[in-house]
Amino acid sequence: MGGDAGPTVALAGAEVALGRRPDLSFLLYGDAAAVEPLLQQHPKLKAVSTFQHCEVAVGMNDKPSQALRKGRYKSSMWRAIQAVRDGEADVAVSAGNTGALMAMSSFCLKMLPGIQRPAIAAIWPTLRGESIVLDVGATIGADAQLLTQFAIMGAAMAQCVFDLERPNVGLLNVGVEEIKGVEEVREAGRILREINHPGFAYHGFVEGDDIGRGVVDVVVTEGFAGNIALKTAEGTARQIAQYLRSAMSRSLLSKIGYLFARPAFNMVRDKMDPRKVNGGVFLGLNGMVIKSHGGTDAEGLASAIELAREMVHSNLLERIARDTVAGEAERAALAETNIKEVIPV
Amino acid sequence: MGGDAGPTVALAGAEVALGRRPDLSFLLYGDAAAVEPLLQQHPKLKAVSTFQHCEVAVGMNDKPSQALRKGRYKSSMWRAIQAVRDGEADVAVSAGNTGALMAMSSFCLKMLPGIQRPAIAAIWPTLRGESIVLDVGATIGADAQLLTQFAIMGAAMAQCVFDLERPNVGLLNVGVEEIKGVEEVREAGRILREINHPGFAYHGFVEGDDIGRGVVDVVVTEGFAGNIALKTAEGTARQIAQYLRSAMSRSLLSKIGYLFARPAFNMVRDKMDPRKVNGGVFLGLNGMVIKSHGGTDAEGLASAIELAREMVHSNLLERIARDTVAGEAERAALAETNIKEVIPV
Repeated sequence: MGGDAGPTVALAGAEVALGRRPDLSFLLYGDAAAVEPLLQQHPKLKAVSTFQHCEVAVGMNDKPSQALRKGRYKSSMWRAIQAVRDGEADVAVSAGNTGALMAMSSFCLKMLPGIQRPAIAAIWPTLRGESIVLDVGATIGADAQLLTQFAIMGAAMAQCVFDLERPNVGLLNVGVEEIKGVEEVREAGRILREINHPGFAYHGFVEGDDIGRGVVDVVVTEGFAGNIALKTAEGTARQIAQYLRSAMSRSLLSKIGYLFARPAFNMVRDKMDPRKVNGGVFLGLNGMVIKSHGGTDAEGLASAIELAREMVHSNLLERIARDTVAGEAERAALAETNIKEVIPV
Repeated sequence: MGGDAGPTVALAGAEVALGRRPDLSFLLYGDAAAVEPLLQQHPKLKAVSTFQHCEVAVGMNDKPSQALRKGRYKSSMWRAIQAVRDGEADVAVSAGNTGALMAMSSFCLKMLPGIQRPAIAAIWPTLRGESIVLDVGATIGADAQLLTQFAIMGAAMAQCVFDLERPNVGLLNVGVEEIKGVEEVREAGRILREINHPGFAYHGFVEGDDIGRGVVDVVVTEGFAGNIALKTAEGTARQIAQYLRSAMSRSLLSKIGYLFARPAFNMVRDKMDPRKVNGGVFLGLNGMVIKSHGGTDAEGLASAIELAREMVHSNLLERIARDTVAGEAERAALAETNIKEVIPV
C-alpha cells in the first residue's frame, strides 16, 4: 500500500522481478478493494502469490508513533514484517513510510544479539562501481561501539552484494589525519584497527568526496551525517542534470549536439539512475527488511525486490550474526588484555 | 607561501584582483628569496604592495599545534593575521593550511563578544543562484546556542554577499518534520523561531538535497555534517563530470555531439566552477580572514580576494557584532519571560 503510487507500482514491480527471478513467490498484504482488481491484471504474479487483506494501511506522513498506534498487529506493513518474524517470508519489501517501517521492524523483529541500534544501508554508485554507505538515517548519533557494529554489518552486506571476501571499510570523517574529527569516530578507528576483523580490511578515515570516488567498499557513519551526505549527493546530481538540460536546450547548436550525443547522455543518466540501486537495507534486526524509494516505478521496485532476494540467498543475516559475535568476542578479549590501547579515555 | 603553488599563484591572483578592483593594496608576507624575484614580474602589483620578509612558513601538512609552535609571531601566516589585528590590514587572505589558519586566527584575533566558537562559511552554487553554508569544518559539534550564533553570522554575511535585507535561514536536518533530527538542531529551531530576528527570516529545517535547490539563502549546521555535505557535493560533481567525459569520448557520434554542444558544456562547467566561489569566510572572530582553496589558480585566488574586499566594504564584522548582540539580548529577554517555551528540557 506504500509509496507514491501504492499497489499499482508494487504489483507491477513484483511482476517485473518475477520475470527475471522465476524462483520468487510473494505474500501480498493490502486493502482487498485496491489490490484484488489490480492482481487480476498480473496473472503470472497472482499464480505465485498469496494475498492477505488488511484493514489498515500506514500513511506516508504518519509519524512512527502514530503508525505503531494505529497499525500494530493489523496494518499491511506490520503483517509483512510479522511474516518475516514468523518464518513465513524470507524478507519484507516496502515502499512505504521509512520512519514507520523502521519503528515497526524494530518493534516486531527485535535487534540481533550484540547490536545496539539498527542502520539503513544504501548502495551508492561510484567511479569504481558501487559502495555501501551506512547508516543513512536510522540512528542519529552513534558511539564508537555502534560504529564498529555498523562496520561489521556493512562489510557482511558487501560480501553478499559485491561478492567480495574481505571488503575495505572506511570511517566517514572530516579529515584523513588521525587527529581530526569527533572522538567517537577516532575511537571507532582505533577499535577497528585493533580487532583486525577477518570479515573486512579497515582502510582508515575517508572524507565526503571519497564516497563517489569509490575509495572503499563500505563507508561507515552515524545516521545524521550519512543522511545528509546521501541527500546532498542526490541533490547535486539533480542540480547538474538540471544545468545540463537547460544548457543543452539553449541554442540550436547545443540541441544538435545533444541529438548526436544522446546515447552518451543516456549512459550517464543510466549510471546515476537511482532506480538501479533502489533499496535501503535495514541492518541489525533479527529479520530482513528492505525499503524501496517511495517515488520509484515498477523497474525500481523490481530492483529492491531483487536486492532483497540476493540478501536472502547470500545469507546476510547469518553472516552478520556470526561476524558480530566474532567481532565482539575479539574486541572483548582485546579490551581485557590491553584496555588502554583499545579504548583510551 | 600557502597553497599548492605558493607565491606564484598568490602574486598572480593578487594582480588579477587588482586589475578588476584598482582600490586594492596589499601587505605581502613570505620568504624574500621566493617572493621578491616573482614580484619583479608583477610591477603593477608591486606598486601597491608592501612586502615583509618572514623566516618561517607554515607547511600544508603541519598540524595546527605544530604550526602554532613553530609559526606563532613569526610565520608569514601569523603576520598576515596580526596585520588585521593591528589594524594595518582590513582582511587576511591565505591559501595555506586550513587548520593552522583557523588556529592562528582564533589565537591572534580572539572571538567576537557573544560568539563561542568560529565557523567557516562557504558559498554554494544552487539552482536559484548561490547560498551560504556554515559551518563547513571549523567547529565539530554545536549546541543550540552556537547554531543560533551561526545563523546570525551567516545571515549577516548573506546581507553582504547577496545584498539581501532579510535573507532566509534554514537549519540542516535529516527531515522536515518538527520531530526529526538531533535535539540541538530541534532546540535551535525553536530558538530561531522565537527570536524572530530582524536580520533574517527563519525558514525551518532543510535537508541535504535542499542545499543545491537553493531553498534558503543560508544553511546552518555544525562543522562535521557541513564538511561532509560540502565534500560529498564536490565529489558528486567531479564524479558526474568524469562520467560525462568518458561517455562523450566513447563513440564518434558522441564526440561530434560534444563539439556542437561544447559551449553548453562550458556553461555548465562554469556554473560548477569552484574557482568562482572560492573563499571560505572565517566567521565569529574579531577580524576578517578568508581561506582560499589550496589548489586554486590565479583566477580562483582573485575571487577569494574580491570576496574579502566585498566583506570589508559591506562591513560584515560590524553587522555580525551588532546582530549578535541584538540577537543575544532578545534571546535573553525571551528566556527570562518564557524559559520553558524557548528551551524545553
